[in-house]
Amino acid sequence: MVSSTTPKINLLKTPTQWAWVEQAITHLDIILLDHSHCERKAAGVALNLMFRYPSYAPLVRKLTLIAQEELEHFEQVNQWLDRRGILLAPLASPPYGSLLKAQIRPQEPDRLLDSLLISALIEARSHERLGLLADHCPEPDLAKFYRGLMASEARHYGVYWLIASHYFERNIIQNRLEELATVESDILANLYPEPRIHS
Amino acid sequence: MVSSTTPKINLLKTPTQWAWVEQAITHLDIILLDHSHCERKAAGVALNLMFRYPSYAPLVRKLTLIAQEELEHFEQVNQWLDRRGILLAPLASPPYGSLLKAQIRPQEPDRLLDSLLISALIEARSHERLGLLADHCPEPDLAKFYRGLMASEARHYGVYWLIASHYFERNIIQNRLEELATVESDILANLYPEPRIHS
Repeated sequence: MVSSTTPKINLLKTPTQWAWVEQAITHLDIILLDHSHCERKAAGVALNLMFRYPSYAPLVRKLTLIAQEELEHFEQVNQWLDRRGILLAPLASPPYGSLLKAQIRPQEPDRLLDSLLISALIEARSHERLGLLADHCPEPDLAKFYRGLMASEARHYGVYWLIASHYFERNIIQNRLEELATVESDILANLYPEPRIHS
Repeated sequence: MVSSTTPKINLLKTPTQWAWVEQAITHLDIILLDHSHCERKAAGVALNLMFRYPSYAPLVRKLTLIAQEELEHFEQVNQWLDRRGILLAPLASPPYGSLLKAQIRPQEPDRLLDSLLISALIEARSHERLGLLADHCPEPDLAKFYRGLMASEARHYGVYWLIASHYFERNIIQNRLEELATVESDILANLYPEPRIHS
């Protein structure tokens, strides 16, 4: 771990490297813009699952809350962009999301399990990285904002795990999570050259 | 108008016929289930527009609030389903949504204008019909719930109109709205045989 105050995320195979922190804190405006896209995408992922499994009540009810929170964070990040005079603009995504999505097996119920665990991993990584920003961001107000968001990200990966527990056996979840967590860490092993939340 | 207490929706070409009210209040459980699907779809439409036009700040910021509210209503309707022991289940959609969507011209900026105005019309019709349910639903608590939602629907069609005003001239909006409102009323001229919010 690069910081002793950042809690260890058990889900993640390897901690974020220091090079990412340096890249991020020297490009805070781009990180904020990318963060805005991440929050909108996170809301989109939750809503897509609600559309794909409309009869799965525990999934639908829990993801409704997550989608609402992601939209709340999206708006909060957009207010930060506003205050800093950064215009909403498209930003090329790092390969992280698409490489993880490629791991989703197409047949049900594997597809559901993989979708939930990948979301859990992304939330876990976001939690870890927002924690690193909270620790190392040179602007105190922004650092405080990141600190505030961390708790939600932690809760979200717990919720994705809980939903998975509702539909799958614990050992099936654990085995697949091990595999996906390894992929997730491998993707981040080489720092993506553009500053991103998931570079 | 079938009720003197339901305000006239100026956007709509023709008021809902009494046959719809009879169909709806004799199938309240199906109407509630369909309503749940409608709220989720409304959140999906708002979010899709936010994905399609990520740099259009006034659109993005206003639709963030709408998507949040639709999700809040989705959850409220799902609580009603819960209380009545109605399971979340798929329900075949009436042709209303797909026929309206087919009116969206594929080229920009027409596509944006049509998308916004069709959403405005759907919100306006929802406002009118929730008002009719509020007036005629035989269960006072449920009637009160519908009454509470009406105000939001009214606000939402105002917001879609406002977003359109930000990107298009008033006379262009008005002319296209006239055309689409005629299509919308024509679709509802023959009652769909299955009870739905938009049958």
